[in-house]
Amino acid sequence: MFVKSCTIQHLGSQRVEHEIPDIVIGRLPVYLRELDRMEHEGGKVTTSSHELAERLGISSAQIRKDLSHFGEFGKQGTGYHIRYLIDRLTEILRLTHEWPVALLGAGFLGHALASYRGFQRRGFVITCVFDSDPQKVGEVIGDLTVRPLDDLEGTLRAQGIQIAILAVPADEAQATAERLVETGVRAILSYAPVSLTVPPGVYVSYSDPVVQLQQMTYYLAPVEG
Amino acid sequence: MFVKSCTIQHLGSQRVEHEIPDIVIGRLPVYLRELDRMEHEGGKVTTSSHELAERLGISSAQIRKDLSHFGEFGKQGTGYHIRYLIDRLTEILRLTHEWPVALLGAGFLGHALASYRGFQRRGFVITCVFDSDPQKVGEVIGDLTVRPLDDLEGTLRAQGIQIAILAVPADEAQATAERLVETGVRAILSYAPVSLTVPPGVYVSYSDPVVQLQQMTYYLAPVEG
Repeated sequence: MFVKSCTIQHLGSQRVEHEIPDIVIGRLPVYLRELDRMEHEGGKVTTSSHELAERLGISSAQIRKDLSHFGEFGKQGTGYHIRYLIDRLTEILRLTHEWPVALLGAGFLGHALASYRGFQRRGFVITCVFDSDPQKVGEVIGDLTVRPLDDLEGTLRAQGIQIAILAVPADEAQATAERLVETGVRAILSYAPVSLTVPPGVYVSYSDPVVQLQQMTYYLAPVEG
Repeated sequence: MFVKSCTIQHLGSQRVEHEIPDIVIGRLPVYLRELDRMEHEGGKVTTSSHELAERLGISSAQIRKDLSHFGEFGKQGTGYHIRYLIDRLTEILRLTHEWPVALLGAGFLGHALASYRGFQRRGFVITCVFDSDPQKVGEVIGDLTVRPLDDLEGTLRAQGIQIAILAVPADEAQATAERLVETGVRAILSYAPVSLTVPPGVYVSYSDPVVQLQQMTYYLAPVEG
């Protein structure tokens, strides 16, 4: 079994030192998601590192070690209390309050993201959508109306937004990211297939389906032809 | 600057040994994407590990070390020949032939993926789309018509498909993955917010926007409230 783990790498001289390795932080949301799933399946109050390990394809030793960074969660023999562990991970990941998120780009992907119901239950709500195309401005997606980019700074500042999702074309991504950072955004989830340059203290997480596919083709049998 | 790197982790006893570390393979598509971008910007025939490093936010030493796993690409003082390096990375990642890809799920995300123009130029073509919802079957997305799940096995075998993109709801993901694996799929890019269990030799790469956002909130200033 293979498990994809997405980690944020802090690189070179701009590395920010944290006590907990980034790769550990990177796994916590996956633990949280699975615990949440266990709880919704119902009937269980406790789990073990072995059960989590089996469900996630991560070794139980790894899970115990990751969680031990944050204190004592389980007892030898009785395992982890699911609700308690969910609450603690929710606190650690700062998800006790809902984060407002700005969405940039109202194309096909922007529509899919704005319509995605998985955000709200897990700590995020898209509160505004922007597009540079005057044809798209005014369009309604669910509860949201697409706004012009001219409103970006005013809206984000008024809402105290620190998180943005970038679903704009590659050639608009860097300029848009710079405006976001200038306005106080500190975390960007970018779907644009391009590497962004941002100042220290700003976090970028990339999602490029082609990069993810190309990371797997190396391991596949060659195509005939 | 922070750069997100997505690596495939081979875990526990099912680890498959390769000569080249997975984390190195994981970075090659990012190098390829940037070199491609350089070439399309025009005017340049060569680049250096320093230039790549600056554009990607990865150290030049790391880039040189990663590439050195595959032989000698650059010369001291003259750097890398962009086209040659693109060709070699294309070979290494098995992208010299186009990979046919099956798309599972024709909801908002499935539509966005089926409409995405970035696949074809970078080695992939979605050749078929499936949905379990009879209402969606027959719908036309670009050049493709949504097929019923009953056609899955026949279509994938006829087309020799090894790669699938999973854009189905969480509660359909595991069962769909099992059918895909049974039919010969060896690489799955999953957008379903759930950990999949697959046999050894099958690769899964996950994309969950909430996990990616939660990996960043840990580092942000807490929300007031």
